[in-house]
Amino acid sequence: MPKKEKGKLRIIPLGGLNEIGKNLTVLEYGDDIIIIDCGLGFPDEEMPGIDLVIPDISYLEANKEKIRGILLTHGHEDHIGGIPYFLRQINAPIYGTKLTLGIIKYKLEEHQLPFEPQLNCVKAGQTVRLGSFAAEFIHVNHSIADACCLAISTPLGMVVHSGDFKLDISPIDGDMMNITRLGEIGRRGTLLLMCESTNAERPGYTPSEKNVGRSLEYIFNANKDKRIVIATFSSNVHRVQQIINVSLNHGRRVAITGRSMQNIISAAIELGYMTVPEGVLVDINEIKRFRPEELTLVTTGSQGEPMSALYRMAFSDHAQVTLGRNDLVVLSSSAIPGNEKLVGRIINELIKNGVNVLHDAVAEVHVSGHACQEELKLMQALVKPKYFLPVHGEYRHLAANRALALDMGIEDRNIFISEIGKVLEIDSKGARFAGTVPSGKILVDGYGVGDVGNIVLRDRRHLAQDGLIVVVATVDTESRLLLSGPDVVSRGFVYVRESEELMEDVRSIAAEAINDCLLRRDKIDRMELKACVKDDLSKYLYSKTKRKPMVLPVIMNV
Amino acid sequence: MPKKEKGKLRIIPLGGLNEIGKNLTVLEYGDDIIIIDCGLGFPDEEMPGIDLVIPDISYLEANKEKIRGILLTHGHEDHIGGIPYFLRQINAPIYGTKLTLGIIKYKLEEHQLPFEPQLNCVKAGQTVRLGSFAAEFIHVNHSIADACCLAISTPLGMVVHSGDFKLDISPIDGDMMNITRLGEIGRRGTLLLMCESTNAERPGYTPSEKNVGRSLEYIFNANKDKRIVIATFSSNVHRVQQIINVSLNHGRRVAITGRSMQNIISAAIELGYMTVPEGVLVDINEIKRFRPEELTLVTTGSQGEPMSALYRMAFSDHAQVTLGRNDLVVLSSSAIPGNEKLVGRIINELIKNGVNVLHDAVAEVHVSGHACQEELKLMQALVKPKYFLPVHGEYRHLAANRALALDMGIEDRNIFISEIGKVLEIDSKGARFAGTVPSGKILVDGYGVGDVGNIVLRDRRHLAQDGLIVVVATVDTESRLLLSGPDVVSRGFVYVRESEELMEDVRSIAAEAINDCLLRRDKIDRMELKACVKDDLSKYLYSKTKRKPMVLPVIMNV
Repeated sequence: MPKKEKGKLRIIPLGGLNEIGKNLTVLEYGDDIIIIDCGLGFPDEEMPGIDLVIPDISYLEANKEKIRGILLTHGHEDHIGGIPYFLRQINAPIYGTKLTLGIIKYKLEEHQLPFEPQLNCVKAGQTVRLGSFAAEFIHVNHSIADACCLAISTPLGMVVHSGDFKLDISPIDGDMMNITRLGEIGRRGTLLLMCESTNAERPGYTPSEKNVGRSLEYIFNANKDKRIVIATFSSNVHRVQQIINVSLNHGRRVAITGRSMQNIISAAIELGYMTVPEGVLVDINEIKRFRPEELTLVTTGSQGEPMSALYRMAFSDHAQVTLGRNDLVVLSSSAIPGNEKLVGRIINELIKNGVNVLHDAVAEVHVSGHACQEELKLMQALVKPKYFLPVHGEYRHLAANRALALDMGIEDRNIFISEIGKVLEIDSKGARFAGTVPSGKILVDGYGVGDVGNIVLRDRRHLAQDGLIVVVATVDTESRLLLSGPDVVSRGFVYVRESEELMEDVRSIAAEAINDCLLRRDKIDRMELKACVKDDLSKYLYSKTKRKPMVLPVIMNV
Repeated sequence: MPKKEKGKLRIIPLGGLNEIGKNLTVLEYGDDIIIIDCGLGFPDEEMPGIDLVIPDISYLEANKEKIRGILLTHGHEDHIGGIPYFLRQINAPIYGTKLTLGIIKYKLEEHQLPFEPQLNCVKAGQTVRLGSFAAEFIHVNHSIADACCLAISTPLGMVVHSGDFKLDISPIDGDMMNITRLGEIGRRGTLLLMCESTNAERPGYTPSEKNVGRSLEYIFNANKDKRIVIATFSSNVHRVQQIINVSLNHGRRVAITGRSMQNIISAAIELGYMTVPEGVLVDINEIKRFRPEELTLVTTGSQGEPMSALYRMAFSDHAQVTLGRNDLVVLSSSAIPGNEKLVGRIINELIKNGVNVLHDAVAEVHVSGHACQEELKLMQALVKPKYFLPVHGEYRHLAANRALALDMGIEDRNIFISEIGKVLEIDSKGARFAGTVPSGKILVDGYGVGDVGNIVLRDRRHLAQDGLIVVVATVDTESRLLLSGPDVVSRGFVYVRESEELMEDVRSIAAEAINDCLLRRDKIDRMELKACVKDDLSKYLYSKTKRKPMVLPVIMNV
C-alpha cells in the first residue's frame, strides 16, 4: 500500500444493503468513478402494483463525467437487471464475462435503446484499467456460470469485492473458484474486503452442485415409468446441464418450456457454456412424438410465479403439457422468502391432479449458490483485509458477517456496517464514515420509472384495505344551491346491492353536509365543501362499519 | 357395530379442508346434528382489508332445530374463533374443557351477545350424550393445555376425531395423551377416523415440549448478564410455565406484556393450569424496580404482528420497554407460512438496535404441537378405523395423510379425501360421497360479516395494483351540452404533480369522448356516456403507461 498517497478513496453502496437485491456499489477516487454491478430488486408487500425496483442513481448522474465503467460480477437480475434503466440515463461502458454479456444482450433487445451500448467482454484472469483503478476478474463458483469476484487495485491499496460466490470443490464445469489467486492477492495485503452476506447466518459449507446431480440420478432411476418435469431457476446453467446429463444417461429427450429458460439456454449453448449432444433437445411442440417416460421437461416457475410455464401446467393452461398421474414434478429450487405461499399453491394443485411432487424439503434437489459461514471465513482468511464491509443482505445478514470477521480477528473498529448512500472514506490515515449521498428506491410500474412514490403507494394500500366512496355534487356557489347530486359511487367498500340502506344514509349525510356548508359560511370555497363532506362521512362510516374507506368528494360549480 | 341400523350417518366438513384454519365438521344422523369445533381462518394476500374468515353455516341455519351441540377439542382460534359469530345466528349449547371455555368467555365478553351462551364444562374422560350421539372427550397433548380428541358413538359405530394432537411422553403437566383409552376403543372397532394432517409431510416424531425447557435452561445460563425477552404464542400455557420455571431457577421475576398474553395467562392461573409461586410475576409497569438481569419478559408478537408488544419494543414504541445491547430476545415460535417477512422485519430491527436474537433456526426454542408421521400412524394403529378421512390441512397435507393410511393397510377405497361442503355418507352397506351442501368463506371486515365478497375484493385488488381515475362531468342531455367538467381526480395511479401533461390529456380525451357521444347518438343515456369515457381513457392510459387504473366516470345530468 503506497503510504504517501494524498487522495481519498470513497466507497458508496447505492443498493444491496439492508435489502435483498438491486446491488450497486460505487468506488470513487479523485476524478474517477467505477461501479460494481447494477441490479434490480423485487417489490415487497408494501409496494402494490410495482413491477420492480432499481437504485436511485442521482449521485452518479451528477458525476457522469467521472464514470469510467460498470463492472459486472455475474448475470443474475439482482446484479445486472438495472442496466437498461441505467443506460437510459448514463451511457457508460460495461465490463463483464461472456455469459453475463450474453444475458444482457437479450435484455437490451427488449428495451431498445437509441444507441449501441458499450459491452466489453472480459475473461476471468484479465484486468481492466479504468482511470486510477485496475480491476482483475477472478473466477468464483455460483449458481450461474461465468461468475467472478473483483480485485481492484486503487492508489490506496487493493479492494476486493466478493460478488456472489460459493466454493465448489467439484463444480460441474470443473473450474473451482480461484482461491489460489485470492491467496496471492491477500499475501500482498488487502485494504478492504466487501463480502456478500446472504448465507452468513448458516454454519458450515454449502454443498457442491454435484450433490443435486446424484439426487437426480437416484430420482430418475426410481421413476423410469414417468415423465419427469423439473422446475429450476432459468439462469442456473449448471443445474440444467446436469438435468440434460442425467436424461441422456436414461435415454430421455429434453424439452424446454418457459421463455426465460429458453432464452438463457440458447445463450448458454451458443456461447459454449453447455454441452448438449445432437438430438437430445426436443422442441416443446414436438413432444407428442415421444412416449412420456422418454421425456424430461425443464421449466420455469420454481418460485410459483403466476403465468410461468409450471403454473400453467399445474392449472391446466399450458398449450403443450397436461400433467397427471404419470408425471413427476421436481422443484429443483428453494422458495425465496415471501414466495412460500405461491409455491405451496402450485404444489397443492399438482398433488390434487395426482402428480407426484418432490421438493427441497424431502430430497436434496437444490443447493444454495451462496457461501456459508466457513466459506465466508475462508474468503477473509485468503484475502486478509484490513477493513471489512459486509454487503448484500438484510441487516441481520450483515451483522452475522460482521460477527464472522470478529471471529477471524479483524478489529471491531475496522468493520463497517454501512447503508445505502453512506460514504465510507479511506485515506492514508484510516477509514471512517463521511456523510451521505442521495440514494433510495426508484419504483418501476409499467412504462413509468419513478412516477410512483410514497404518496401513490400509500393511496394504493388505503384503497386495498377499505376501498373508496366517491361523492359528486354540482353546486351554484352564487345562489348557494345544491343543483345536482350528491351522487355516490363506491368500489371495494361493501357489496352495494346488499347495503342500500347504508348507501342511502351516505347520500343524505353528504347532502346535509353540503347544504350546511353552503348556508353557514360567509365565503364558499370548494376545498371547504370537500372537507365537510369528507369529515362527516368518514365519522359516520367508521361508526357504522369500523372501516375507513377513502372518501373522495368532487364538487362541481356551474 | 350394529348391523341392522337403517339410518345414514352424514359427515360434512364446513371448514379446514384444502385450507389452514376455520375448522368445523358436522355429524348428522336422522334428526340429530352435532358440530365439532367452530374456528376462524386468517385472510390470505388475495383478501386485502379482511380481518378474518369464518365458515359459511347456512346449511346449519337451515337445520337449526336438529343441532344438539357444539363439541370443542381445544381453545385455539382455528377451533373456537368462529363461536361468537356462530352464536349470533344459532344459540347452540357448547361443550368443552375448562381452559377452552375460559378462553371463550374472554372472547364473548368482547362480542356482547344479547343472551347468555350455554357453556358446558367437560373433563377429559367424560361422555356427553347428544341425541343419537355420545361423545367421549379423550386427553391429547398439544401446544395448548386441556386439549382433547373425541370418540363419538353413533348408531352406525364409533367415529373418532383426532382434534389437533401430538404424543408427548414427557409433557409439562405430566399428563400424557390417553393412548390407552384410544387403544380400548380401537379394540372394539372404529367406523371412521377423522385425523388432523398438519404435519403429515414430516417424518418421525414431534419432539417433547420438555426439549424447549432444556434449551431455555442453557440459554438462561449463558445470558446471566442480560434481560431476557421471550416471545411465544399466547395460548401456549405450558411454554409460559416453562419460562416461569426457568426464570425461578435463575432468580428472575417475570413480567407479561401484550393483551392476549395477559388475558390467557390470567385465565390459566385462575383455572389452575399454571403454577406460579407468589411474587414471581411483576406488573410490566413495575419492572423499573428490578435490575434488567433480574427480569424475564414474556411477550406476544412472535409472528411479527404489527402493533404487537414485541413489534412495539423493536420499533421503540413500547411504553415500558426499550431494548438494546443488554437484552436477549428469544423467538420461541416458528413463523406461520406467509409471516416469514414480518418476523424477519422484527429480527432485523432488533439486531440493528444491538439486541441479541435467538430463533428456532439457531436453537431448539420451539417444538411443534402437531403429530408427525409416526404419531399419525400411531393414531391409526390404536383406533383401527375402517374408513379414514384426513382433515385439517391443504390438499398436500391431506394427500400425505392418505399415503400414511395406505401404508398402514387401510384400503384405498375406504380413504376419502373430501372438501368443504362435500357429504360423506355412511350406512350399513358402506361409505360414499353423496352430494354437497352450501359452504364457503364468510369474510369479516370491521363490523361487517359477509358484506365483502368476490366483487368487492376484486375491486380492492384492482385499486391496489394501479389505483383509479375518477372523471366527473355535468351534462344537459336535453340540449346535448357538456355544462361543467370533466374534472379528473386520481388516487394511487401517478404522482399527479409530476404528471400534469398526462392528466391534461386525460381531461381532453374525456371531454372529446363525452362531446362525441352527446352529438352522435340519437338517444342519450348515462350508461352509454360512461362506457365511452371508460373505453377511450383505458386505451389511452394503457398505451401511455402500460397500467390499467380503474376508470370511474360519474356523469351528472342537470
